[in-house]
Amino acid sequence: MKGAVLYGPYDVRFEERADPVIVEPTDAIIRMSASCICGSDLWPYRGANPVKEPAPMGHEYCGIVEEVGRDVRTVKKGQFVIGSFFASDNTCPNCRNGYQTNCQHRAPVVGAQAPWLRVPLADGTLVATRDVPSAGMIPSLLAVSDVLGTGWFAADAANVKKGSTVAVVGDGAVGLLAILSAKCMGAERIIAMSRHAARQRLAREYGATEIVTERGEEGAARIREVTNGVGADSTLECVGTQESMWQAIHATRAGGFVSYVGVPHGVQLDGAKLFFTHVHLLGGPAPVRRFLPHLIDLVLDGSIEPGRVFDLTLPLAQVAEGYKAMDERRAIKTLLTT
Amino acid sequence: MKGAVLYGPYDVRFEERADPVIVEPTDAIIRMSASCICGSDLWPYRGANPVKEPAPMGHEYCGIVEEVGRDVRTVKKGQFVIGSFFASDNTCPNCRNGYQTNCQHRAPVVGAQAPWLRVPLADGTLVATRDVPSAGMIPSLLAVSDVLGTGWFAADAANVKKGSTVAVVGDGAVGLLAILSAKCMGAERIIAMSRHAARQRLAREYGATEIVTERGEEGAARIREVTNGVGADSTLECVGTQESMWQAIHATRAGGFVSYVGVPHGVQLDGAKLFFTHVHLLGGPAPVRRFLPHLIDLVLDGSIEPGRVFDLTLPLAQVAEGYKAMDERRAIKTLLTT
Repeated sequence: MKGAVLYGPYDVRFEERADPVIVEPTDAIIRMSASCICGSDLWPYRGANPVKEPAPMGHEYCGIVEEVGRDVRTVKKGQFVIGSFFASDNTCPNCRNGYQTNCQHRAPVVGAQAPWLRVPLADGTLVATRDVPSAGMIPSLLAVSDVLGTGWFAADAANVKKGSTVAVVGDGAVGLLAILSAKCMGAERIIAMSRHAARQRLAREYGATEIVTERGEEGAARIREVTNGVGADSTLECVGTQESMWQAIHATRAGGFVSYVGVPHGVQLDGAKLFFTHVHLLGGPAPVRRFLPHLIDLVLDGSIEPGRVFDLTLPLAQVAEGYKAMDERRAIKTLLTT
Repeated sequence: MKGAVLYGPYDVRFEERADPVIVEPTDAIIRMSASCICGSDLWPYRGANPVKEPAPMGHEYCGIVEEVGRDVRTVKKGQFVIGSFFASDNTCPNCRNGYQTNCQHRAPVVGAQAPWLRVPLADGTLVATRDVPSAGMIPSLLAVSDVLGTGWFAADAANVKKGSTVAVVGDGAVGLLAILSAKCMGAERIIAMSRHAARQRLAREYGATEIVTERGEEGAARIREVTNGVGADSTLECVGTQESMWQAIHATRAGGFVSYVGVPHGVQLDGAKLFFTHVHLLGGPAPVRRFLPHLIDLVLDGSIEPGRVFDLTLPLAQVAEGYKAMDERRAIKTLLTT
C-alpha cells in the first residue's frame, strides 16, 4: 500500500509502505474509511520535534475491521470502528480511572494516513457502531477519533458546566471543537480568542458568544475586562506555547480551571507565579477512549457535526498538499480520502 | 509595646514598636491571646527572601477585640476572634468563590508576634466564637488561623474524600495537619513522608497509616510501589521546593490530584513533563477564611486538637530562640505567650 511518510521538515512523501499485518494476537487490521491530518502533526512537520528516521504519519482513524488476532474477543470483522491515538487495554487502574492515554499497556497508533492500519489492543481500544454508517457521517465520526475527543477533554478537564463563562485559547480545529464541547456542556458565555475570519465564523456557529482578538497578556487582560475584572471560570488552552499557557492562566479567575491539551512546546511554569493565581490546572493527551461512546452517539443522533472542521478534502495521494495548506493556515483541517 | 522584628538572616529582635491604632474605619485592634512562628517565616529568616528593611513578623493570631473602626458592623469589642494572614472583605467575587486570599481588596496582616495587632477589613476577616474560650483551647484555636487552615486547604484542593489514598510530602506543622485534615475527610490510607521520629509519631497519631522515609524521585517511586504501581489518588505538597514538587507529582496516579501550599521557592515546572503525568494541580495561599467557621467548630467540640503541633512554648520575649529552634528542627512549631 502507499501512505504518508515524514522525512524531515516540510518533507512529507506519499510512498510505498508494507501492508500492516497482525503482530500481536490482540491486534486488529482496519480498512480506513478516511484519515486526516492533526494539528500535532505540524510540530514534527515544522521541525519542532526532530525526525530521526522516516516516520509513517497519522493517528486519527475510523473504518471497517478486516482481520483480528486470535485473542480479540469483542471486535469482529466487518464492524465499523473508531479508536484513539493511544491503544489502551481499558482494564488497568489508569483506564478504569478514565485516563486511557496513561494505560499501563498503552501503545501508540501510527501510520493512519494510509488505506490500512494495525490497531493494537483492539478490544480495549476500538468502539464499534451498531450499523455501518453512511458516507456522509464519516467526517464527523473521524473527528471523534482525536480532534473532538481532545476538545471535549479540554472542556471536561476545565470543569465546564451549566452557566460557566469559558474562554478558549486557540482557533485551530481542537479549539473550535472545544467551543462546541463547552456549548454541549451548558456554558453560558464562550469567548473565542481568534483573529481569523473563517475560524471566527465557525466558532460562532459552534457556540461562541464573543470573540477576542488580542493575544498573550493583552488577550488575558481583555478577558478579565469583559468579566468585570474577575476572569473566566474555565479557560481551554488549545495551542501549547509559553505565551498561550500564560494567556490562559491569566485569563482565569481565582479558583477557576485551566485545561491544556496541546502538547506543550517550550513551556516553563514558574511555581511561585502559578501559586498566586489560584487556578486549577489539568492537561495531558486526551483520554478520548473515555468519551468515545458518548461522542459517537451525539454524532449519530445528529446533535453535533464536528466534521465541519474539515474545510479541505484531498485524496490521500495529495497528502503533502494537505500538510502545506494547514501549515500556511489556508485550511483548518484536511480530510484524506482513501 | 514590644514585638518581633526581622533585621536580616538569622537576626530576629524583640524590640519596641509603635502600638497599633485604627487607621481605616474598617480596622479592628485585637489583644493577642497567643501568637506563634510559621514555617513560612523561616524563608526570610534563612535569607531566601531578602529583607529590605526591618520587618515586623507574625501573621497567625487570635485574641480579644479591643477597639473597632467606625464602619465595623459585626465584630464587637470583647469578642474572641480568629482571622487569617490576608485580610479580605468576604464579599467580592473571588471571596464568594471561596478564594479569600485572592480578595480584590486583600491586605496582608503583619506583626502578629506582638501583644496587639491591627486587622484590616475586620468584618470580612475575623470570625468570632460565641463565648470566650478557656485558656486550654488557645493553642488549637490559634492553629486554625493558618497552619491548620493551610493543611485543610491542601487536603481540600487535592480532592481528598472517603476512601482516598493520600500521600503527604513534608512533615512540618502544615504537613502534619494536612494528615489530620485528610483523616477528617475520610481518607483510607495516609502515607506520611518523614524521616523524623517525633514527627512520625505525631503523624501516626493524626491518622497516618504508613511512613515512607525516601525522598525525591526515590520517594515517589516508593509511593508508586506501595500503591501497586499506580500512585496516590491525592498528594499534598507541604514544602515548596523543586524536589518536593516533583516528588509529589510523580507520586500521584494519572488523573490524581496534587495540591501545593508552601510558597514555591525556585520551582520550575516543565510543561511537557507535567502534561504526560495527567495530574490535577492546585495550589496557592490557603483561603483559610473559607474554612474558619467549620474548623473552629471542630476544635470547640473536641473533634480535633491541632494545637498539638506546638511542641515548644516560649514567652514572646524569647521569640529569637523560637525561630532558632524551628530552623534547627528542634521544634516543630513554637507558640509565643504574650
